[in-house]
Amino acid sequence: MAKTRAGIINVTGYAGVELARLLAQHPEVELTSVTGRSAAGQKLGDVFPHLADMNLTITSELEEVDFAFSAMPHMDSAKGIIPLLEKGVRVVDISADFRLHDAAAYPQWYGFNHPAPEMLEKAVYGLPELHHASIAPAQLIANPGCYPTGAILALAPAFREGIIEPGIIVDSKSGVSGAGRSLSLKTHFSEVSEDVSAYALEGHRHLPEIVQELSLLHPGQPPQITFTPHLIPMTRGILTTAYAPIAAGKLAAGEKGAEELASLYREFYRDAPFVRVTPAPPHTKHTWGNNFCLVHPTIDRRTGRLVVISCIDNLVKGAAGQAVQNMNLMLGLPETTGLQAIAVYP
Amino acid sequence: MAKTRAGIINVTGYAGVELARLLAQHPEVELTSVTGRSAAGQKLGDVFPHLADMNLTITSELEEVDFAFSAMPHMDSAKGIIPLLEKGVRVVDISADFRLHDAAAYPQWYGFNHPAPEMLEKAVYGLPELHHASIAPAQLIANPGCYPTGAILALAPAFREGIIEPGIIVDSKSGVSGAGRSLSLKTHFSEVSEDVSAYALEGHRHLPEIVQELSLLHPGQPPQITFTPHLIPMTRGILTTAYAPIAAGKLAAGEKGAEELASLYREFYRDAPFVRVTPAPPHTKHTWGNNFCLVHPTIDRRTGRLVVISCIDNLVKGAAGQAVQNMNLMLGLPETTGLQAIAVYP
Amino acid sequence: MAKTRAGIINVTGYAGVELARLLAQHPEVELTSVTGRSAAGQKLGDVFPHLADMNLTITSELEEVDFAFSAMPHMDSAKGIIPLLEKGVRVVDISADFRLHDAAAYPQWYGFNHPAPEMLEKAVYGLPELHHASIAPAQLIANPGCYPTGAILALAPAFREGIIEPGIIVDSKSGVSGAGRSLSLKTHFSEVSEDVSAYALEGHRHLPEIVQELSLLHPGQPPQITFTPHLIPMTRGILTTAYAPIAAGKLAAGEKGAEELASLYREFYRDAPFVRVTPAPPHTKHTWGNNFCLVHPTIDRRTGRLVVISCIDNLVKGAAGQAVQNMNLMLGLPETTGLQAIAVYP
Amino acid sequence: MAKTRAGIINVTGYAGVELARLLAQHPEVELTSVTGRSAAGQKLGDVFPHLADMNLTITSELEEVDFAFSAMPHMDSAKGIIPLLEKGVRVVDISADFRLHDAAAYPQWYGFNHPAPEMLEKAVYGLPELHHASIAPAQLIANPGCYPTGAILALAPAFREGIIEPGIIVDSKSGVSGAGRSLSLKTHFSEVSEDVSAYALEGHRHLPEIVQELSLLHPGQPPQITFTPHLIPMTRGILTTAYAPIAAGKLAAGEKGAEELASLYREFYRDAPFVRVTPAPPHTKHTWGNNFCLVHPTIDRRTGRLVVISCIDNLVKGAAGQAVQNMNLMLGLPETTGLQAIAVYP
Repeated sequence: MAKTRAGIINVTGYAGVELARLLAQHPEVELTSVTGRSAAGQKLGDVFPHLADMNLTITSELEEVDFAFSAMPHMDSAKGIIPLLEKGVRVVDISADFRLHDAAAYPQWYGFNHPAPEMLEKAVYGLPELHHASIAPAQLIANPGCYPTGAILALAPAFREGIIEPGIIVDSKSGVSGAGRSLSLKTHFSEVSEDVSAYALEGHRHLPEIVQELSLLHPGQPPQITFTPHLIPMTRGILTTAYAPIAAGKLAAGEKGAEELASLYREFYRDAPFVRVTPAPPHTKHTWGNNFCLVHPTIDRRTGRLVVISCIDNLVKGAAGQAVQNMNLMLGLPETTGLQAIAVYP
Repeated sequence: MAKTRAGIINVTGYAGVELARLLAQHPEVELTSVTGRSAAGQKLGDVFPHLADMNLTITSELEEVDFAFSAMPHMDSAKGIIPLLEKGVRVVDISADFRLHDAAAYPQWYGFNHPAPEMLEKAVYGLPELHHASIAPAQLIANPGCYPTGAILALAPAFREGIIEPGIIVDSKSGVSGAGRSLSLKTHFSEVSEDVSAYALEGHRHLPEIVQELSLLHPGQPPQITFTPHLIPMTRGILTTAYAPIAAGKLAAGEKGAEELASLYREFYRDAPFVRVTPAPPHTKHTWGNNFCLVHPTIDRRTGRLVVISCIDNLVKGAAGQAVQNMNLMLGLPETTGLQAIAVYP
Repeated sequence: MAKTRAGIINVTGYAGVELARLLAQHPEVELTSVTGRSAAGQKLGDVFPHLADMNLTITSELEEVDFAFSAMPHMDSAKGIIPLLEKGVRVVDISADFRLHDAAAYPQWYGFNHPAPEMLEKAVYGLPELHHASIAPAQLIANPGCYPTGAILALAPAFREGIIEPGIIVDSKSGVSGAGRSLSLKTHFSEVSEDVSAYALEGHRHLPEIVQELSLLHPGQPPQITFTPHLIPMTRGILTTAYAPIAAGKLAAGEKGAEELASLYREFYRDAPFVRVTPAPPHTKHTWGNNFCLVHPTIDRRTGRLVVISCIDNLVKGAAGQAVQNMNLMLGLPETTGLQAIAVYP
Repeated sequence: MAKTRAGIINVTGYAGVELARLLAQHPEVELTSVTGRSAAGQKLGDVFPHLADMNLTITSELEEVDFAFSAMPHMDSAKGIIPLLEKGVRVVDISADFRLHDAAAYPQWYGFNHPAPEMLEKAVYGLPELHHASIAPAQLIANPGCYPTGAILALAPAFREGIIEPGIIVDSKSGVSGAGRSLSLKTHFSEVSEDVSAYALEGHRHLPEIVQELSLLHPGQPPQITFTPHLIPMTRGILTTAYAPIAAGKLAAGEKGAEELASLYREFYRDAPFVRVTPAPPHTKHTWGNNFCLVHPTIDRRTGRLVVISCIDNLVKGAAGQAVQNMNLMLGLPETTGLQAIAVYP
């Protein structure tokens, strides 16, 4: 049977190139077209030597494909995707352009008016652990942001079940690749090495995604989230530490409550092949290069708070791997196809 | 005038060797005796080549000094210090042995019965920004832990003034040198590089220090603190992100409240030469090698929470530098003597 | 058809655990037994969370297998392997115990008398690019050291063809994982981060391997090699820079000579699926997690010297990947089976 | 007595800002004027928070000073300096513009015709360990490049005494700050972290400096140098490994020759306060933030080669610190004034 022909719009960022790596190893899909602006005309392997065995040339326009991924920046991505949708191509959009259901959020958070607000309700938020059934038939998937992936998976079981109250703190620590391949003093080696800093204290664009998805899980209880991202001196990985007060009477006291909590999380993710509820605090290194999200829920008994740690590789489960996971569901393939690599440790 | 003769008990850990560096550059004090167990008999510069110009031999017992620093592990430190105190030597203890006023906390948090509980009330908690006046005449100073230094300085102004409610989250990110020079898989390069993890989720030993000091600032309102330390791939530096609900009616709305808050912090630290309230989010790199604590208080207006960032070099303001700052006060010297180095950037 | 049952003796070092990762993804082989000393009795996934999906328990003795890898330290490895060989098991030894053909080299370089000197001539040095034909039928393969793999592949084409004179400098820069998982101050994070140093200036154990293999390529011309290894602050990767005077009259002048050189290298490695002769200076990052050796030969025209750069991942092509490559040849499988992962970049 | 008023042209690069740090701590000099192009008008402490205590505003033109440092890029630096020289200001130029005595080298290596070739013979190459006497009275000092500083200090004693033959290999490993604060994919964190690479294989601009200075030490014997710089994942530090054949009959055999060599080096640097001949292989970390060059000469007895390791902090001894050392000599101050900081370890 012929493989599905897939294309990547804007392969030259870190999410795009990671997608190329994953698709090169996918048994049912063939990457046949990759685009890029400044690199158009060059061989993919000349720009990215680790892909030297892929015989592809970067073009300025996408060639005919059965399935497309957009790794363009926001606003450009929506504009580029609309014509593809009209031609009937199925698309996973890695940008933020179709993640928020409320069109009014785009001018507020992203500074532009959405060019196709009517598409926002058709697009499906592509977090398979929450929206598995809607993803399969969708034409357009909005691939979640890296921070929301880790944050939502850390909190979803507790929030949906009403275990926690709505006052939530999400404190995330991210490697630098999440800031992309574009040059900036913030990602200049000598500035980042041996440094840690918090940023976007006035409000990060990923906050409305987290709020939207948790709200849908427990409609009567709008979450009150403070989200603080931090940049740490490593390339890949996001560790999220999420805090919330445990609702009165929801968990037994002592060790028994901890067991109830772990059990609730394991049950919630029973059918999720890429979420592992871990017995010990997880390390981002345990996800390096693969599609897992490791989740470790605990209780701070002194204060009655839930403390959940989650770890992902921001370029895999936080971007390209999740995009492939969505594609697998859309194509009717087993969810894990092409995504079974073990993390590279140490 | 003769310089004060100072000694370091257990110079061979990172706090001890950093103290040697700082004292070598101190104009009023001369380091005349350094001890170490396994390294006894060796020249200091043979074990630590960056100290090759210091003509000192590591001995097993402290020679006669006017002033002593103990950088021994907890429990051993108390035992080693007691005879010195009896001889009238003034001491800064870098270990945790005299930090907690409640003797019952030692078996609970450190696993030993305190050998001199009567000394706990005589010892002064050596955070000069809070206890300046008591430090000067003290014979024994308990030098604060690295995490508490950053956490308390982040929260003290707001907590003392009743600006915040007692439900506090302290999320800290530390470089690896805080774990010391003793070998462990947790500090093995290949395990830490490109990794971030949370640890001590069951309760870190520095928590009771933070609770004790905040409680003293606002006696009627015991803080409810969840403290989560994280290990990140860098050598020096702790960034702490502290969260707490702002008490109703305590700050004006909007930009005005932010100004009130900054003003409150600047006023609180007006006479503190080593605390700088920064207008932008600080980076640990801006404290590399020096004794500053950078504090940046902000308000998350969406949720009405205080979010404060603080940065220190864990080996300087978090250990050896603070010890010298305490010594300066005890000797009647200007607080900044020998501590004026600018951070080494980048 | 039943998969080959493979076992790993001493899975708990970095080479062992990397081998487990690679075998877990191998389509024709099943890892059925793993041993370890201190970790015996524990589940593999409890010690190494990234291997949580492998349902294996670490035992103290190897169970019955068709094929064994030994990742024990030198001397112990030889002792452990001999009984397996007597039972007819085929073995790849990752230690140094069978690499040197001259038994007298063991007391000189490794400090022990070889327990089975008669085996040294039966063992095959498992660098497939040089000994492809002898590896296939062998019972015992001595898997090359990490530094020799990069150094020999950098120099073999030029040395065999007599392009260079025997006065060779090999200057190698290695990540820290090459020093293993055992604790040492040299691999303590705070000592290695932001540091580079040379070591083993008196002679590194990998030198005799490099000399032996080059000597065999051009018997009449014993190489005179100075080899200096350096430790640099990263986890994986070795970059080797090799220098040698170009023999008179062996290459054309100017650009033509450079083309002849590149052509010679490409021809030498024409059938080697894991060596890529690169048009630009390679980066170790382009081999992260995969089995490639990237080789870049150049001429310093000012001085008439050959300068060759090679890059490998020390745990893959420099250890576990090469061991699997050898196993594939021994089992009559395509050389690249299970080793086709693309490097994880960035 | 009034302090010397000093200025820095282009303070906003890493060499410029490091110079500001060192001058802020200098007892005899006051930094009174700093310039920058894009940052003109801003307070120095707003651009560089670690300098927040320096009350200086960045201007576009240098104000009146007694002494100037130029940290401009090459070509621009010469153009900016010439008017200052005409006004009688004494200058240390951190750029390459006056390092090479041969005007023809500028179009060849730097791609521009020198705007003031007549100045090249008046300028003094500011390596105090070689040119101490000429530096003191000079008006214009060409501050050496970072690589040449480490390479020349490693080789000068052996080369001047004819201990080695002219076929020299210089293999250097540099931290990333040497590439400056300007943005580039080569210094983008995610590209450099966990990576090592060689660059400038066709010839690095620092090569002619090394050749020039060694040639002057032993006029009859032009050195034949291959120089390969490497970029490694750390911020500060250069380790250079230099190799050369030992000339016949120049050193005794065995241990005695090693002692003669060490003695020769110690004698050569007897009066050099910032060069330390070390008994063990040095680490760049032992120079972090200070002005030392650590040199460790050894003999590879198997091949009769000299192998010398040197370490510097590229921003201090390799740039700003050496500039201050030159200024001290020019002002008749003790050479070490303001430069006595101990390295920050770990």
